[in-house]
Amino acid sequence: MIETDILIIGAGPVGLFTVFEAGLLKLRCHLIDSLPQPGGQCSEIYPKKPIYDIPGFPSVLAGDLINNLVLQSAPFKPGFTLGEAASTIEKQADGTFVVTTVKGTEHKAPVVMIAGGLGVFEPRKPPIDSIGLFEEKGVDYMIKDPEVFRGKKCVIAGGGDSALDWSIYLAENNIASEVTLVHRSASFRGHLDSVQKVIDLADSGKIMLITEAEVTDLKGGRVLEEVVISHSKNGEIITKADHFIPLFGLKPSLGPIADWGLEIEKGAIRVNTLDYSTNIPGIYAIGDVNTYENKLKLILCGFHEGTLAVQSAFARIHPDKKNILKYTTVNGVNGF
Amino acid sequence: MIETDILIIGAGPVGLFTVFEAGLLKLRCHLIDSLPQPGGQCSEIYPKKPIYDIPGFPSVLAGDLINNLVLQSAPFKPGFTLGEAASTIEKQADGTFVVTTVKGTEHKAPVVMIAGGLGVFEPRKPPIDSIGLFEEKGVDYMIKDPEVFRGKKCVIAGGGDSALDWSIYLAENNIASEVTLVHRSASFRGHLDSVQKVIDLADSGKIMLITEAEVTDLKGGRVLEEVVISHSKNGEIITKADHFIPLFGLKPSLGPIADWGLEIEKGAIRVNTLDYSTNIPGIYAIGDVNTYENKLKLILCGFHEGTLAVQSAFARIHPDKKNILKYTTVNGVNGF
Ligand SMILES: Cc1cc2nc3c(=O)[nH]c(=O)nc-3n(C[C@H](O)[C@H](O)[C@H](O)COP(=O)(O)OP(=O)(O)OC[C@H]3O[C@@H](n4cnc5c(N)ncnc54)[C@H](O)[C@@H]3O)c2cc1C
Ligand SMILES: Cc1cc2nc3c(=O)[nH]c(=O)nc-3n(C[C@H](O)[C@H](O)[C@H](O)COP(=O)(O)OP(=O)(O)OC[C@H]3O[C@@H](n4cnc5c(N)ncnc54)[C@H](O)[C@@H]3O)c2cc1C
Repeated sequence: MIETDILIIGAGPVGLFTVFEAGLLKLRCHLIDSLPQPGGQCSEIYPKKPIYDIPGFPSVLAGDLINNLVLQSAPFKPGFTLGEAASTIEKQADGTFVVTTVKGTEHKAPVVMIAGGLGVFEPRKPPIDSIGLFEEKGVDYMIKDPEVFRGKKCVIAGGGDSALDWSIYLAENNIASEVTLVHRSASFRGHLDSVQKVIDLADSGKIMLITEAEVTDLKGGRVLEEVVISHSKNGEIITKADHFIPLFGLKPSLGPIADWGLEIEKGAIRVNTLDYSTNIPGIYAIGDVNTYENKLKLILCGFHEGTLAVQSAFARIHPDKKNILKYTTVNGVNGF
Repeated sequence: MIETDILIIGAGPVGLFTVFEAGLLKLRCHLIDSLPQPGGQCSEIYPKKPIYDIPGFPSVLAGDLINNLVLQSAPFKPGFTLGEAASTIEKQADGTFVVTTVKGTEHKAPVVMIAGGLGVFEPRKPPIDSIGLFEEKGVDYMIKDPEVFRGKKCVIAGGGDSALDWSIYLAENNIASEVTLVHRSASFRGHLDSVQKVIDLADSGKIMLITEAEVTDLKGGRVLEEVVISHSKNGEIITKADHFIPLFGLKPSLGPIADWGLEIEKGAIRVNTLDYSTNIPGIYAIGDVNTYENKLKLILCGFHEGTLAVQSAFARIHPDKKNILKYTTVNGVNGF
């Protein structure tokens, strides 16, 4: 059981800065994130793109902002449970909460702050009726270990960088025995270099490229055996396959948190702007995951919300102590 | 008459960042500040000190933060009226406001945002009953043009850098015909170098140094003629003087804004946290100058307040237009 003062669900920019603000009040934090790295949307979706509206930065790459926030919170030594989605929450007799991840890791704290952004990133699934039958039996929405595909016949679907890059990887390194890439349109959304490489590999027969087509059905017994591809002009193509890998990107969804008894409004958690507390005392929601009248889903707003929430958490955790605001300039940053 | 969309009173960090947020919505801003430079407390009180709680900056000098904010807002070409305190506000028949400074400069805008921080910096006056009689007739609380003192007998009071530096300046450059420095204590609060220089100049007879003493009375007719200095041990000293210059630092005070009909609570302007509007429609208050339940006087909170206030101002100025939040990363920053 991991124990801490404030358990933060979501290690995006808002969760990270909250560690710093909590640290100033001598409160320890532990962060849970379903992604393998901190930074939320900034790291997962646009690390190399500039943001222009972080106060004091005329321009900052999203990835650099995250690196800075990690550095800024480092003196307060946050704990991390990464690559695991928080799944359940249980209120204890002593008023604390126990949060358990999908992998069973348990965390206990008197205060929980949900900084879950747009939610857990989940794969976008193509609308194929039979797809559910073959999940974990040949259908893979993500590639974690490419060795799984060694010597196998693979059909990849998608038109972005992920589909292009994995097709190239599995074909060029002679991992898969066959690589078929299926894409709805005749043009790709990925980097020009990657598009060129796929075309070259198709010309040399290492990738079977089928554009203006869609996978419409999957067939098999205990495991996947065949993929049905419908071409806009040429009709149906049925190809033997051990794996079907649809790579249509990740889409965030509030996920298990939606069932925690919190007041949900348009996919976000309703909070009180006095301290960004939710309808459950001891649980706060900050950053993109919350909603209130005039809410803006901006990083700078989340920083303010986390700062105010931490003050309220302090009063909860230390009902007997009075907290007087001290300027960092005057008081410095004294880590743990 | 200077006309703009949003008139911002106070060019501290919060006023400056608000220019940027307003610019994203294509609203122009003009700033008024009683100080001669932008940056508020950061520039005036602690430009060379580090701040540790600006999100994304593990450490940033207050002066550098201001430079960055000026750069960040530059694409939106804000106007500035510097060195003039905003003094009066008049609501016009067309619903706009006219704000006039102490020097008579007039500004007109449909929205006014008060980002006045702790207020106008005013000189700390010593408690001498007769001092009011000689203001502008020999008593000077600030030195703007040292040439005013050429050939004059000057008594300076104070123990900080300002008192030390001006005593040195007026004596070393042979500007004043006589310089007397009076200080309550036997030790000074200024830089060691300056203290040493004052002692050297006193030894060589260029400064008359009187410590453990206070100016207790001023005498004269139409103008100041004599200064009465009470020494803790030696009793009263009366010295001829054309100028008495008490340099006890600046102290902020809400000033004329306190009389604008706004709801004031403990020296700050009460706002509604929905959009940081005041009790007068069209007037907002953001940053250190405002108050609400759980208010923290922190720079990062002011950034959030200004951002939300600007959204509300947009709706006021363009009641017919719908404003949809666009990410700067996606949309860029398109200046005027
Ligand atoms: C392309 C793009 C451009 C953008 N540009 C800007 C911009 O210019 N300015 C700006 O201010 N904002 C911009 N944004 C929005 C900005 O990225 C978000 O406002 C910000 O990331 C929100 O931070 P957060 O910490 O609240 O949430 P997120 O960054 O979404 O992080 C939330 C984290 O919580 C995790 N999580 C969720 N649920 C669980 C769970 N149950 N268990 C474990 N972990 C969980 C997620 O994996 C995620 O890592 C942009 C967004 C995008 C996509
Ligand atoms: C020594 C010190 C250390 C600090 N350390 C920190 C820290 O570590 N972190 C932090 O977040 N904050 C810190 N602060 C506080 C921080 O500086 C303030 O929160 C911040 O400056 C507020 O910004 P503002 O723009 O609201 O107001 P200000 O910076 O006060 O600026 C307001 C401006 O309005 C002008 N003004 C007021 N009335 C009028 C008028 N009638 N007409 C014209 N102009 C007017 C003033 O001249 C001033 O320039 C510190 C403050 C001090 C003094």
